[in-house]
Amino acid sequence: MGLIDKLLKGDRRAAARAIRLVEDEYPEGKEILKRIYPHTGRAYILGITGPPGAGKSTMINRLVSHLRKRNLKVGVVAIDPTSPFSGGAILGDRIRMQEHSLDEGVFIKSLATRGHLGGLAKCTDDVIQVMDAMGMDIIIVETVGVGQDEVDIVKTADTTIVVTVPGLGDDIQAIKAGVLEIADIFVVNKGDKPEADKTVRELKIMLEMSAPREDGWKVPIYKVSAMKDEGFNELIEGIFEHRKFLEKTGRFESFRRDRLENLFLVMLKDKLANELLEKMEKKGLYRKLIEEMFEKRTDPYTVVDQIECKCSYQGEDIDS
Amino acid sequence: MGLIDKLLKGDRRAAARAIRLVEDEYPEGKEILKRIYPHTGRAYILGITGPPGAGKSTMINRLVSHLRKRNLKVGVVAIDPTSPFSGGAILGDRIRMQEHSLDEGVFIKSLATRGHLGGLAKCTDDVIQVMDAMGMDIIIVETVGVGQDEVDIVKTADTTIVVTVPGLGDDIQAIKAGVLEIADIFVVNKGDKPEADKTVRELKIMLEMSAPREDGWKVPIYKVSAMKDEGFNELIEGIFEHRKFLEKTGRFESFRRDRLENLFLVMLKDKLANELLEKMEKKGLYRKLIEEMFEKRTDPYTVVDQIECKCSYQGEDIDS
Repeated sequence: MGLIDKLLKGDRRAAARAIRLVEDEYPEGKEILKRIYPHTGRAYILGITGPPGAGKSTMINRLVSHLRKRNLKVGVVAIDPTSPFSGGAILGDRIRMQEHSLDEGVFIKSLATRGHLGGLAKCTDDVIQVMDAMGMDIIIVETVGVGQDEVDIVKTADTTIVVTVPGLGDDIQAIKAGVLEIADIFVVNKGDKPEADKTVRELKIMLEMSAPREDGWKVPIYKVSAMKDEGFNELIEGIFEHRKFLEKTGRFESFRRDRLENLFLVMLKDKLANELLEKMEKKGLYRKLIEEMFEKRTDPYTVVDQIECKCSYQGEDIDS
Repeated sequence: MGLIDKLLKGDRRAAARAIRLVEDEYPEGKEILKRIYPHTGRAYILGITGPPGAGKSTMINRLVSHLRKRNLKVGVVAIDPTSPFSGGAILGDRIRMQEHSLDEGVFIKSLATRGHLGGLAKCTDDVIQVMDAMGMDIIIVETVGVGQDEVDIVKTADTTIVVTVPGLGDDIQAIKAGVLEIADIFVVNKGDKPEADKTVRELKIMLEMSAPREDGWKVPIYKVSAMKDEGFNELIEGIFEHRKFLEKTGRFESFRRDRLENLFLVMLKDKLANELLEKMEKKGLYRKLIEEMFEKRTDPYTVVDQIECKCSYQGEDIDS
């Protein structure tokens, strides 16, 4: 049985190998993505974000256990702020997830924020595609912080959960505000702490003060305790509630279309620019232009204006 | 006197108007960028990053005061995680900087992480160009978190300072590790706290354990207290030290070339993709392809493979 067949049957080893081939930009990787594409689009994408210190990893660990109890297969893509170079530092977090390591219904993949040839968003999407094709029912995408790239990734999740904890200080207010518009569900983690209710109240006030959402969804707040394993059933019901809402309003489908359009745009940009740069380098034009710009004899705005392209699709002119 | 002349003389109002024209993508904005381009490349770019709660804004506020005492003009670009929608939340931080509002030698601009037509990196660069042309000696770029985009921005700074504080918890370890390779200087803020020395020691151990840097720079650690206004002279000397190191090793120039190449690549990608998408939409090809991909009759990898472009520069073929 070939790699792709195994992958489609949910084999984690095959999936891991497929992801490596994709990550390293082997031609086989692209072939795999093409072949599995028809088998994708079924998984539910759950974006989970929040500031450092919010205990996202432990919370996700518990959430995975509860989803498994409901017989749902779960993939986790952790967007990891550490580089491969210094990756050891947060191994602790990942190790906590190792309790799922013998469970064939769980597949965890950590992605460093740097060093992806086609960009982090593209790479995340590739991994989601593989997990989707291997039959994961829910794919959790965990990100830290509020970078543009991370927001882009979370933006295309079906349900976005923003996790916070009591007592993270003033600066966290800013983060909370920054993610206000992307949160479908708020989770106050470490809900067993006495200050947790205060945090819930603050969030409630913040939500009440902000304009109602255009889509009509009322953002709920759930209090959980990863340590005491409390509140997760309510949270899962809340996620299902949001899923029902998306299906009823047609957003479930439109998110998939948005995700596809984003992916297509990123791929198109990379292809066009990479091919052009390669040709420019072959002619020595690239170095020449960079030097001219560097010496202020011209400027990048003017240079870009003077580049014109004619493109075709399947051999047919697009311009005409 | 025209807008550009005023800008080049350091007029903050003219600079603010120029930035607005650039941000809103008016044709005048691009014209301004072209015209000021020959007057750029002199400012020293200082990237300051660190996790939420590290007190970056207050620290930068103090740093600006000390740089002003040395008669240096300072620009600050704050990459702000809040959106325009909810931007009120961190006004507090900005207000703290208002003590510089009457000082013509200081210019502060806050950029939201979302909603920039050409992307955050491009927009940040545009603002740096304007501040550079108006004669700012040092431009501080403040970012939160560890998103890819932010790392890209900080990556092209001449000196990157990573700020941390005592007692931010375990997850912060991850952040510290993630930024280890981009930090030229570590700053432990709130250095008056009793635990500050422990944080300094931890950082020292982390630096000692990691591989020596390829460029030979030894990353120093400075302890400052923004509240007590302590340690800033030492920090500024440390920044100058790094600048000397860059000049001696030729990196000062190569960073400028890198920044130019990055900018050029981003602009090229946007131009090529935007023009092509526009043409595809005019022909109805874009919608048709998205639908075909959405219905799994084809896939984005195959579609992108089947797009071919021929480009010219100043009317001359690049392929031939």
